[in-house]
Amino acid sequence: MRPAVTGSSAPLDLAIRGGTVATAADTMRCDVGVRDGRIVALGDDVGPAARTIDAAGLLVLPGGIDSHVHLDQFQGEGIAMADGFRSGTVSAAAGGNTTVIAFALQRRGESLRAAVADYHAKARGEALVDYGFHLIVTDPTPGVLGQELPALVKDGYPSFKVFMTYDDMVLTDRQLLDVFDVARRENALVMVHAEGFDSIRFMADRLEAEGRTEPASHAASRPEVVEREATHRAIALAELAGIPIMVVHVSGREAIEQIEWARRRGLTVHAETCPQYLVLTAADLDRPGTEGAKFVCSPPPRDAESQAAVWRGLAGGTFQTFSSDHCPFRYDDAAGKTGPKARASFRAVPNGIPGVAARLPILFSEGVVKGRITLQDFVALTATNHAKLYGLYPRKGSIAIGADADIALWDPERRVTITQDLMHHGSDYTPYEGLEVTGWPVTTMVRGRVVFDGGRVVAEAGYGAFLPRETSGRRASPEAG
Amino acid sequence: MRPAVTGSSAPLDLAIRGGTVATAADTMRCDVGVRDGRIVALGDDVGPAARTIDAAGLLVLPGGIDSHVHLDQFQGEGIAMADGFRSGTVSAAAGGNTTVIAFALQRRGESLRAAVADYHAKARGEALVDYGFHLIVTDPTPGVLGQELPALVKDGYPSFKVFMTYDDMVLTDRQLLDVFDVARRENALVMVHAEGFDSIRFMADRLEAEGRTEPASHAASRPEVVEREATHRAIALAELAGIPIMVVHVSGREAIEQIEWARRRGLTVHAETCPQYLVLTAADLDRPGTEGAKFVCSPPPRDAESQAAVWRGLAGGTFQTFSSDHCPFRYDDAAGKTGPKARASFRAVPNGIPGVAARLPILFSEGVVKGRITLQDFVALTATNHAKLYGLYPRKGSIAIGADADIALWDPERRVTITQDLMHHGSDYTPYEGLEVTGWPVTTMVRGRVVFDGGRVVAEAGYGAFLPRETSGRRASPEAG
Amino acid sequence: MRPAVTGSSAPLDLAIRGGTVATAADTMRCDVGVRDGRIVALGDDVGPAARTIDAAGLLVLPGGIDSHVHLDQFQGEGIAMADGFRSGTVSAAAGGNTTVIAFALQRRGESLRAAVADYHAKARGEALVDYGFHLIVTDPTPGVLGQELPALVKDGYPSFKVFMTYDDMVLTDRQLLDVFDVARRENALVMVHAEGFDSIRFMADRLEAEGRTEPASHAASRPEVVEREATHRAIALAELAGIPIMVVHVSGREAIEQIEWARRRGLTVHAETCPQYLVLTAADLDRPGTEGAKFVCSPPPRDAESQAAVWRGLAGGTFQTFSSDHCPFRYDDAAGKTGPKARASFRAVPNGIPGVAARLPILFSEGVVKGRITLQDFVALTATNHAKLYGLYPRKGSIAIGADADIALWDPERRVTITQDLMHHGSDYTPYEGLEVTGWPVTTMVRGRVVFDGGRVVAEAGYGAFLPRETSGRRASPEAG
Amino acid sequence: MRPAVTGSSAPLDLAIRGGTVATAADTMRCDVGVRDGRIVALGDDVGPAARTIDAAGLLVLPGGIDSHVHLDQFQGEGIAMADGFRSGTVSAAAGGNTTVIAFALQRRGESLRAAVADYHAKARGEALVDYGFHLIVTDPTPGVLGQELPALVKDGYPSFKVFMTYDDMVLTDRQLLDVFDVARRENALVMVHAEGFDSIRFMADRLEAEGRTEPASHAASRPEVVEREATHRAIALAELAGIPIMVVHVSGREAIEQIEWARRRGLTVHAETCPQYLVLTAADLDRPGTEGAKFVCSPPPRDAESQAAVWRGLAGGTFQTFSSDHCPFRYDDAAGKTGPKARASFRAVPNGIPGVAARLPILFSEGVVKGRITLQDFVALTATNHAKLYGLYPRKGSIAIGADADIALWDPERRVTITQDLMHHGSDYTPYEGLEVTGWPVTTMVRGRVVFDGGRVVAEAGYGAFLPRETSGRRASPEAG
Repeated sequence: MRPAVTGSSAPLDLAIRGGTVATAADTMRCDVGVRDGRIVALGDDVGPAARTIDAAGLLVLPGGIDSHVHLDQFQGEGIAMADGFRSGTVSAAAGGNTTVIAFALQRRGESLRAAVADYHAKARGEALVDYGFHLIVTDPTPGVLGQELPALVKDGYPSFKVFMTYDDMVLTDRQLLDVFDVARRENALVMVHAEGFDSIRFMADRLEAEGRTEPASHAASRPEVVEREATHRAIALAELAGIPIMVVHVSGREAIEQIEWARRRGLTVHAETCPQYLVLTAADLDRPGTEGAKFVCSPPPRDAESQAAVWRGLAGGTFQTFSSDHCPFRYDDAAGKTGPKARASFRAVPNGIPGVAARLPILFSEGVVKGRITLQDFVALTATNHAKLYGLYPRKGSIAIGADADIALWDPERRVTITQDLMHHGSDYTPYEGLEVTGWPVTTMVRGRVVFDGGRVVAEAGYGAFLPRETSGRRASPEAG
Repeated sequence: MRPAVTGSSAPLDLAIRGGTVATAADTMRCDVGVRDGRIVALGDDVGPAARTIDAAGLLVLPGGIDSHVHLDQFQGEGIAMADGFRSGTVSAAAGGNTTVIAFALQRRGESLRAAVADYHAKARGEALVDYGFHLIVTDPTPGVLGQELPALVKDGYPSFKVFMTYDDMVLTDRQLLDVFDVARRENALVMVHAEGFDSIRFMADRLEAEGRTEPASHAASRPEVVEREATHRAIALAELAGIPIMVVHVSGREAIEQIEWARRRGLTVHAETCPQYLVLTAADLDRPGTEGAKFVCSPPPRDAESQAAVWRGLAGGTFQTFSSDHCPFRYDDAAGKTGPKARASFRAVPNGIPGVAARLPILFSEGVVKGRITLQDFVALTATNHAKLYGLYPRKGSIAIGADADIALWDPERRVTITQDLMHHGSDYTPYEGLEVTGWPVTTMVRGRVVFDGGRVVAEAGYGAFLPRETSGRRASPEAG
Repeated sequence: MRPAVTGSSAPLDLAIRGGTVATAADTMRCDVGVRDGRIVALGDDVGPAARTIDAAGLLVLPGGIDSHVHLDQFQGEGIAMADGFRSGTVSAAAGGNTTVIAFALQRRGESLRAAVADYHAKARGEALVDYGFHLIVTDPTPGVLGQELPALVKDGYPSFKVFMTYDDMVLTDRQLLDVFDVARRENALVMVHAEGFDSIRFMADRLEAEGRTEPASHAASRPEVVEREATHRAIALAELAGIPIMVVHVSGREAIEQIEWARRRGLTVHAETCPQYLVLTAADLDRPGTEGAKFVCSPPPRDAESQAAVWRGLAGGTFQTFSSDHCPFRYDDAAGKTGPKARASFRAVPNGIPGVAARLPILFSEGVVKGRITLQDFVALTATNHAKLYGLYPRKGSIAIGADADIALWDPERRVTITQDLMHHGSDYTPYEGLEVTGWPVTTMVRGRVVFDGGRVVAEAGYGAFLPRETSGRRASPEAG
Repeated sequence: MRPAVTGSSAPLDLAIRGGTVATAADTMRCDVGVRDGRIVALGDDVGPAARTIDAAGLLVLPGGIDSHVHLDQFQGEGIAMADGFRSGTVSAAAGGNTTVIAFALQRRGESLRAAVADYHAKARGEALVDYGFHLIVTDPTPGVLGQELPALVKDGYPSFKVFMTYDDMVLTDRQLLDVFDVARRENALVMVHAEGFDSIRFMADRLEAEGRTEPASHAASRPEVVEREATHRAIALAELAGIPIMVVHVSGREAIEQIEWARRRGLTVHAETCPQYLVLTAADLDRPGTEGAKFVCSPPPRDAESQAAVWRGLAGGTFQTFSSDHCPFRYDDAAGKTGPKARASFRAVPNGIPGVAARLPILFSEGVVKGRITLQDFVALTATNHAKLYGLYPRKGSIAIGADADIALWDPERRVTITQDLMHHGSDYTPYEGLEVTGWPVTTMVRGRVVFDGGRVVAEAGYGAFLPRETSGRRASPEAG
């Protein structure tokens, strides 16, 4: 528990008045008082303040935390992601987010510490919102396992990501277990990309041999059974190692079945899903020409039945977090979705789609407005649970006394058609183009300062700060005294 | 959304300072400001107040809402419950509760409206904490179904309870369906006591025929399969009628399996459990002499494996509410647990045990202190979810701006051995005698007024007010504007 | 084990030469030798015989045993079934059956013994194939439970049928348990019609109130949840009573799920299905005009997904028996499917369809020929398992030394379109009219005597004999010595 | 269907008179007539024969087929299995078996064709009972996949075995898929040893690092989750490739759960279990000193709960085959269970136990005599299903006209204590020493010739013949004409 701010009789820096505040538990009409970047008062009337924002008719929500965002991540020589930390965090802020957790990717042969330094260099002076790093472990050498990971956990990187597929990142089961064992000792949380490498290659080889090189083959090469098998495997390895895990970007009913089955057995398995599994399907990859390439991400979108299963999981507690898996590439670009190699085979289409700006409006509109989830579910899934699971709580993730004043003001009734120009990201398209949503974040505030407002950036790049994080867990002890 | 209190620049009536506030989402060190019985400020410093309570070292929790309490309920001629509304609500307050929802029992041949009037008369001027009534429907005549229930829902009684067993209360499946159909039309919530009447009679007849008349036969006559079958049946009938249901006092793994199975199918099934299923077992009914009668309640406590399943369900979201099913009788009493008829056969032992005072300390100690659930789970399970499901939210159930100042101050480190004299109820024993707990409610406040403090009543009987309730549902719409 | 026939050097009465014999385990090219109505030799060459049947190109299968056939069963005053024992057993023989087990229905207020006598009188001198009786218990008085059932089990009626629906037959759960308890003591097998009475009435009342009186409402009033609930309940009551049960005429995936779930728990639950759940759907009840009435049976046919589940259950061991549930009424008849009352409401359409002649061709063609089940599965599902479960084995149910020479010769390649005139039953229609099948029984032989051949009856009515049966069970002990 | 033997009026070579014949479907008192090594007559009296065996009081069962037997299999330089084809098949015959299917192990870098030739050379002139070979694929080169496997399937080797663990045999998931793909094209059946290689190494490394080098660590290093994960993975890969699979030596409830789950999804997954999972537990590996090494096999025996699950699976249809996984080593031997390396660490204890002689008596006694399975289940599980699944049917696997006269005569009442000297194998111990069984095979006959009788060999080594096998499947078409 952070100590309460003392000397609080000082005047407020800011009062947000007349809005409706929502937390993961409650909705209440009240004012919010901010001082020194933190929330210090909630009340019928929080008294005088240096500055006032009128939030009448607006929701006052915790700023979104997107715990699954790829920015400026190494993709191979000569290939660039469409977003670095500057445009990526602008896009985040445009979408109502106040924190992103990006990835520091270890390249094989490289030290993790060096990778972390590298990503800090990429982010320094660039970010508009606060940020942290998960560690992608691709080369779990004895030094990485024995020294680097333990030290990095203590330094504020208490979450690892491991891949069960991709040429340059896939770990063997033994490597997974070795990483899991470090996580157990260090109380870190492991995020798992659960798709089976060999299964995908087998299917992709077969499809290529049949001449089926179009984008739709991306989905065909990774059917749900591929994700289900890897999910079961990851759960089993975690059970063996004795750790909780987080299965990220769960796409459909088969993986969900494994996760729910594991929980009934008493295992701690967290799960995340993303907007692409709610509003896209595999049919989008089959759009004419190269258009389908715009939707190539992994796991691929599925079908209506799996969309329904994901909704059920969001409403019913299967999923703890809803992230974007923002992984932006350009469509019309030699190194992008439709470059020469990508046109030759679906296997060369960069995997990933942008979404950090679209995540919150999609879930709000399709979920809250359509009555599938409550506003409290929305806050938990987009902010509070991210903070709790990844060691940012109670500083981030809620509208609570003592927390950073990271706030998104929402107009719950504004109707917006999602278009590329609203996304403010580096990709030259959005996969959600044309989607109509109700509800939109109109003002984004980080530590009490408005950074994005009325459709434009209103703070300087570099305002966003690095967030060292603490080890955490869903089962915290009561705090008092 | 209730309108914010205006004119709030008026001074506070009360400030609770220095404590740690918990909601179903958050834990925060802050002060709480109260005016006109409602919470109007949360903050680092809520400013001057007419009165201050020092909560340093204490948790400031929403007062418990016990939505399953039987008080002064008709048991047959000449049989009295051990608690009326006076002693029952004193016991509730002693245990950190600020609201109870009791039952208005329709006797067969009686109108429901008359029953409600009768229970209002019993409660008037007696209660120390606020209260509402669920309607027990035992005689669903056309008039009850067509006129009385719809009118009563509108008048503030939006929850019905139905029984699948007990001679004087059991409904046929058709009657259940007819009540469910009214609930569907009126948006009321039906609570189901799920044990199979005929199965119990079959087993009890067999046990009596074998001369097994001791209290332990109560448990033997109602094995888990009896509860499981009724639970499946209730779920199926609710599916047919198209309504959500609340399965109350779920005792073990077999009923849990049905509930979780139904949810995976997409059905809305709420579930409640109680302290007797966490810390008692069927072995307690087999204590020497007539001692076992102290533990006779329905469903009966089970075994260690089912206790573990109930804990898993509390931590994992299977249960929305944790109630006491307070149903108090006297042990050493001619009409009680050991009267002549009760000694002759377990079938005549009054069904039910007291627990309204013990509920919160048991869950806090066994759950939060032992790390099985979080403090947020505790708040949700004991207060917030009761308010949301039964139509008391946002007035009750949370520490939030605008809510009634219904607060329990907890000393999270106080070690207490539960004894009869700490319970303040009308029973002459507690089934939890000797249980050691850590954490205890030291002050209970209803609408800003302390009603129980330091082990004694500090407000007059009748302070507690009747609470008309609204129809509600877990899936509320966002509120703004 | 029956003793082997001695003096077997006597010449054979009959040799079936050149065919392919199939049992529930094996398929073998061999001759079959018959003496005194029993099979006494299987071999490459069984030697000389008084008579030879040339079975070249034919399958030599055990005659079908249809353990679920309603004949001349009381339906209420003035209502007649379309088949008595004469036409019903002719139809059975026409369809390759050599044994039927019909029902002796106790009318409420009547003794079971009297009912049995009544049905014996109806059958005497009428039957073309052998027959037995299950006992339908509708009025489990103390005398029925204490004296009649135990005595009748010993007299050759070791199987009871109970109904969970129908005005004149439904038992309460307590009555079910009382009957189950007798079954436990007497080692009888209980067959359960699992549909929930009150649920059906609730739905039917609602449909009638909405003016939906057409035949399709029959299916709408009994959705799968109605069958699933009753199936779960029957299983639970059987678990409580400690007996195996047989769930008859299982129609779809929801009841199947319950049965498979129960088995995984270690309970002994047998299951039966019927041709209507393979080749009909609820859409057939929605045919124009009154045509849908031809398909009104209970449970009603479901949909393609449930058909697939039933096939999976047939191939995978969920079902032990495949019966017809032959329950014949006339379509164009004042007391039949389209009489005045039936036209007024679906509730008055007599429940049941004819099928004893169509059962085997449908399963052979749709199952064996289409590769969904093996020939061995077919024999087990249509003959052997019926004999074993209902106490006719080893006298009936297989092509084995010592068994009755009850044989159906099949032409596995004959293509036939099912039409009313091929059914030889008393109904004036067949619900399977127009269905094309491959494979047809060309000759039916009971105890060594051909009774139906080339499309016509070739033995006198009354040749069929009553079969007293023994208590039995799937788990028999090894027999030797 | 094999053509019937012609000219069958010739006298019989052998008649087995007065016994009780059992098949997978039936039990019948009858004589069996044999000519030219094949069964040509079953009957009350099969007439004159050159030789008669009196089987009064005996069961006449199909000789056991043990489809999982390791004989003279390469174990690494300098390490010998305790049985070659001579002693191994003597032991098989002693235990009532008439056919074994052993393994031809491809060594990495070696051609499969060469391996097959090698194992033929090992077997030639040695075997007492008939034998075939499964192909163990350890090095699926393009030549193996493209040429050798297809050719070998056609030559009579239609079953492959693949390993998911063991240093010298483990295949990657991609290699598994490539082999599965060949199986799909060639209609071969793949047997899978499902334990996860990396998981075992992770656990074993941890145990060794903790100094836990004793035999009990073998079980600790391979908990059920290791088998469960590999089972799920194998099923998923088979689903992806579109083939049925056979999961061999399933040890307990967790793998069973996966198999049953897969079947409910409609996948074809066959399963085998073994005697060690019925009568041994992990506690046996913890016997004092090095005694535990006698029980080291993989997967290891589990616990009472898993034994119960295996029994349920045997009775309920989860398992199609019951094999020995005979894999014999010597206990008191430098290269055996207690050699210097084995004493240093559990990882060096040769994996495997002898069991070909004990398999049938254990299942008969514990299963049939104790009423857990029927005699028909026994025949199916030990003979008929092996023949059908592995392409030996109808020549092998039943007592049927036209089949080889492979018969075991059983005394169902003989009480025997299993001891090393009754096993007739090359190991110097039996893990079943001291187990008391009821029922024993007294005479074993292969193709009409007695090979083992009264406890001793009565035919010459080399009488047993190689059996080329056909591709097969559980779902055969009807055979006639």
